[in-house]
Amino acid sequence: MSQLPLRYEVEELIHAYVQCIDDDQLESWPDFFTDECVYKVIPRENVDLGLPVSVMFCDSKGMLRDRIVALRKANIYAPHFYRHLVSNVRVLGEQDGVISAQTNYVVFQTLLDGETRIYNAGKYLDKIVRENGELRFKEKLCVFDTNRIQTLMVTPI
Amino acid sequence: MSQLPLRYEVEELIHAYVQCIDDDQLESWPDFFTDECVYKVIPRENVDLGLPVSVMFCDSKGMLRDRIVALRKANIYAPHFYRHLVSNVRVLGEQDGVISAQTNYVVFQTLLDGETRIYNAGKYLDKIVRENGELRFKEKLCVFDTNRIQTLMVTPI
Amino acid sequence: MSQLPLRYEVEELIHAYVQCIDDDQLESWPDFFTDECVYKVIPRENVDLGLPVSVMFCDSKGMLRDRIVALRKANIYAPHFYRHLVSNVRVLGEQDGVISAQTNYVVFQTLLDGETRIYNAGKYLDKIVRENGELRFKEKLCVFDTNRIQTLMVTPI
Repeated sequence: MSQLPLRYEVEELIHAYVQCIDDDQLESWPDFFTDECVYKVIPRENVDLGLPVSVMFCDSKGMLRDRIVALRKANIYAPHFYRHLVSNVRVLGEQDGVISAQTNYVVFQTLLDGETRIYNAGKYLDKIVRENGELRFKEKLCVFDTNRIQTLMVTPI
Repeated sequence: MSQLPLRYEVEELIHAYVQCIDDDQLESWPDFFTDECVYKVIPRENVDLGLPVSVMFCDSKGMLRDRIVALRKANIYAPHFYRHLVSNVRVLGEQDGVISAQTNYVVFQTLLDGETRIYNAGKYLDKIVRENGELRFKEKLCVFDTNRIQTLMVTPI
Repeated sequence: MSQLPLRYEVEELIHAYVQCIDDDQLESWPDFFTDECVYKVIPRENVDLGLPVSVMFCDSKGMLRDRIVALRKANIYAPHFYRHLVSNVRVLGEQDGVISAQTNYVVFQTLLDGETRIYNAGKYLDKIVRENGELRFKEKLCVFDTNRIQTLMVTPI
């Protein structure tokens, strides 16, 4: 049972990450990452074929911040709420201080018509490191099944 | 990791609560609450605007029991099954013996046509206390995103 | 809190099981079961009425292997991806070395049109034993709410 506390800690990180998005505290979202980081939202098909193109791509905390500034000030999109369910947090291993974890997610979206629909389903593939005692994402890939994206993806997954 | 057992206990409470509803053991549902309690199912919009109106409101265990008696004997509604998924149980703090927790949920509903649909997505905001060694809800707010409620809400969320 | 490590272990088993299916490592799927085992995907209605008919039925590891060989070589069906969310893993008891557990699940399916839909919602009723230190399913019932199955069920639930 030596994996117990680590899975627990990784769950705490992912739960806090999800709550940050769902509760629209997006200004804090970049703080879940290390300064040098990769964040990608990428179709499963591209990952399977080794193709690099993703729907969102950021490779520094500054780019993550830019995204949120754009979302707040520049992007035009339908008002919406996200509700994440995550499940199956699995710690796959730890090497040189980098924890690999995999988690299933489904993002449910509610638009102004008040109906909740499945927006994006997939899995997180995370590389996590410890910084000043806190876990942070060094890399977060959101590999999604839902190739038909119904509305512009502005809010991170 | 001192939060570990507490989150674990809160998860056990919420999982038992959900199983009670999904397995149609609704006569036991009020027992998850303290005698003096608040149970509200309220739209996110109203919470954000500070408006009090909710879709379900009970402020005692007696009112919770009344609801179930009404459901069994008086209410007329389409037969249905609920299936809850919960995720992201987060213990936010504990003060004067009251634990605050937040949890994402989605209720899936199956009607007699055999299709399963998203019925209600949202988050639980819980105030939990310990009574004779058992955790109980002193307050349970179900703050929902899904403003378009497709069929009469009779069964608790 | 003596139930803590056991629920944790059961979660690890179920999470690994789900990942195996969602990541299309189906050749490993039978290894989650004991040699003598029962695997059933059965409608809730039949369980409630005590009727035996199920949508999938296997009563040995060999039959589980057969299923996967059939899926790979013989069955004709629409290409699809599964994404499971599980929630509410509850250890109900342990008797004579057999652990009883109950878990809610929803399987989301993505077809080639790229939309993700609710495919099958229900609960796992598991009988779990320990073999050489590893937990295995001796019996796994997938009791589903979703009586209208939209496409042929080939991939296990």
